[in-house]
Amino acid sequence: MPDALPPGSTIGIMGGGQLGRMLAVAASRLGLKTHIYSDEADPPAFDVAAARTVGSYSDAAAIEAFARRVGVVTCEFENVPAEALQAALRAVPVYPPPFSFAVAQDRLTEKTFMRELGIAVAPFAAVATAADLKAALGQVKLPAILKTRRFGYDGKGQALVRSEAEARDALAQLEGAPAVLEGLVAFTRELSVLVVRGLDGALQYYDTVENVHAHGILATSRVPAHISAGVTAEARAIAGKIAEALQHVGVLAVELFHCEGGTPALLVNEIAPRVHNSGHWTLDACLVSQFESHVRAICGWPLGQTSRHSDAVMTNLIGGDVERWRELAAEEGVAVHLYGKAEARPGRKMGHTNRLTPKL
Amino acid sequence: MPDALPPGSTIGIMGGGQLGRMLAVAASRLGLKTHIYSDEADPPAFDVAAARTVGSYSDAAAIEAFARRVGVVTCEFENVPAEALQAALRAVPVYPPPFSFAVAQDRLTEKTFMRELGIAVAPFAAVATAADLKAALGQVKLPAILKTRRFGYDGKGQALVRSEAEARDALAQLEGAPAVLEGLVAFTRELSVLVVRGLDGALQYYDTVENVHAHGILATSRVPAHISAGVTAEARAIAGKIAEALQHVGVLAVELFHCEGGTPALLVNEIAPRVHNSGHWTLDACLVSQFESHVRAICGWPLGQTSRHSDAVMTNLIGGDVERWRELAAEEGVAVHLYGKAEARPGRKMGHTNRLTPKL
Repeated sequence: MPDALPPGSTIGIMGGGQLGRMLAVAASRLGLKTHIYSDEADPPAFDVAAARTVGSYSDAAAIEAFARRVGVVTCEFENVPAEALQAALRAVPVYPPPFSFAVAQDRLTEKTFMRELGIAVAPFAAVATAADLKAALGQVKLPAILKTRRFGYDGKGQALVRSEAEARDALAQLEGAPAVLEGLVAFTRELSVLVVRGLDGALQYYDTVENVHAHGILATSRVPAHISAGVTAEARAIAGKIAEALQHVGVLAVELFHCEGGTPALLVNEIAPRVHNSGHWTLDACLVSQFESHVRAICGWPLGQTSRHSDAVMTNLIGGDVERWRELAAEEGVAVHLYGKAEARPGRKMGHTNRLTPKL
Repeated sequence: MPDALPPGSTIGIMGGGQLGRMLAVAASRLGLKTHIYSDEADPPAFDVAAARTVGSYSDAAAIEAFARRVGVVTCEFENVPAEALQAALRAVPVYPPPFSFAVAQDRLTEKTFMRELGIAVAPFAAVATAADLKAALGQVKLPAILKTRRFGYDGKGQALVRSEAEARDALAQLEGAPAVLEGLVAFTRELSVLVVRGLDGALQYYDTVENVHAHGILATSRVPAHISAGVTAEARAIAGKIAEALQHVGVLAVELFHCEGGTPALLVNEIAPRVHNSGHWTLDACLVSQFESHVRAICGWPLGQTSRHSDAVMTNLIGGDVERWRELAAEEGVAVHLYGKAEARPGRKMGHTNRLTPKL
């Protein structure tokens, strides 16, 4: 086991959003300080950090200087440029390792990686040009989804295409950005597994989550998921295999399609090398949240207990939903989490609630 | 119901210790910012605060300027000078109200207040001079404890006296500080009740805690306490009566002696107008911790749910205990909380653990 970062050490976090904010709070529980690096002037995580740097993610010198002031660097979003990770690595360890980011940042790399591991994914084909598209439509049945390889999130950078004409239009909209054509999966439900891998290779899993999306954005996550013990075991096995193949350190979120009665029954949709929205329920239903687990892993601490003491439904507060804060705060059995964002723009994640019920 | 401070507002906290740190974290959960005022250069709460001011508690102008930058002022220790509270009040509301501090800061005022409410306390008498002591020894049976009226905590400023000679020595040690002679209570156990009173007068109670002290410092707190439903009800009634009489807003801790089979069975030892060490178990065993309850109360939010989902034992990590952090972090069912203090001096509270077990 490598040396652990002792209490009093500082964790550098790239990114200042709500995930960084909740990581900073989790670090404080363990007597650890955080230093947030963000390209925004006053992001949510600044409110709870011991130190703050505003800078560009493409400013390698600034990132290296930031990294020299901390004991380890981690990230709260996956689209951190590879150069930024390399700049930080010149000063201190970076966890999760850059390879996890490289795989998760590019849908083609990600899907190819899964296929090479023998893990099922939706039918896919790379599409950069009109000629590629023609070939791809030969391989992937319609309806399908054309997605940019990079920088998509919350349903952005993707289009459902039901005909060759729609596919051509969608490709034109991407203005030359390399893409992937993915076959539409007729899934029964969406699941996610949050796996934690320690510096020493230890693996732990939170209970598998059942997710419902609306307008491309996660709406609710529920534990327990309505799945059999066999599917639970298979979902964990897939997540563990990916975490090990990546030599991941920290929390890894694996989103899956569950096709009840299908062969295979589980397909990986995508992975995120970080704490994840579908793990926010762990803040109230577990002794050690996904945020604390991530902190423990990247600091070389013993991993925490991932079991839950309650059933939970997490509901995102999107845009104007947050105006209901007072009513939500008065509800029995509901924990309210708000991210301190000033402006409630449509589609913006402003907070979430965790509704707990006794574990059945 | 008065207007609530909405998400995005800033709470001013006087004091930068671990209680301020955990209050700041709880505020962040609700989308609230904190501004810490401390007379130390880099206290624990600064690590998780949006803004920080270093200043003296006797600098009324600095405190008023601090208060003008926040929406409400609260305190994380009870010995805030009355002048400091008044300076803050010139700018914004101060909760708990200064009266709660006035009563809690002075053992004589506190005990007189209880007696006037018809609440039992240990036999006591005021002692300022040698003549007072003689009279007091006529009223209060030995063995007794001579305590300074003000500024005592964690067993400091008090002495057990078994004879008149010991009492005279103890008084001389106080160098003229006004004192109280208290009869020693042969209690079965020490209890505490954490009551929350909202801005609208609503009252909520956490489950009664059983405390064990060692060397004058709280060692462990356990829920449930080993007491009957009748004693539980009586303890709550006492705490509620005090909170109402004070017109308290926020968390109030009421420490009690339980004398099994005695008449009365419960005596109030002391009160603290703030979140309290004996409520740290609520961080992991309740949906809404004492810290969040305090924040909700002082901001005029609906009070949170105080019920617990688990049984819990909180153990303080005092001085060198904190060196065991790695071993404690690896224990099943244990949540570790460290306060980020650099120096582990003997007797210093460095952190605590909460050991949870399923609720019986």
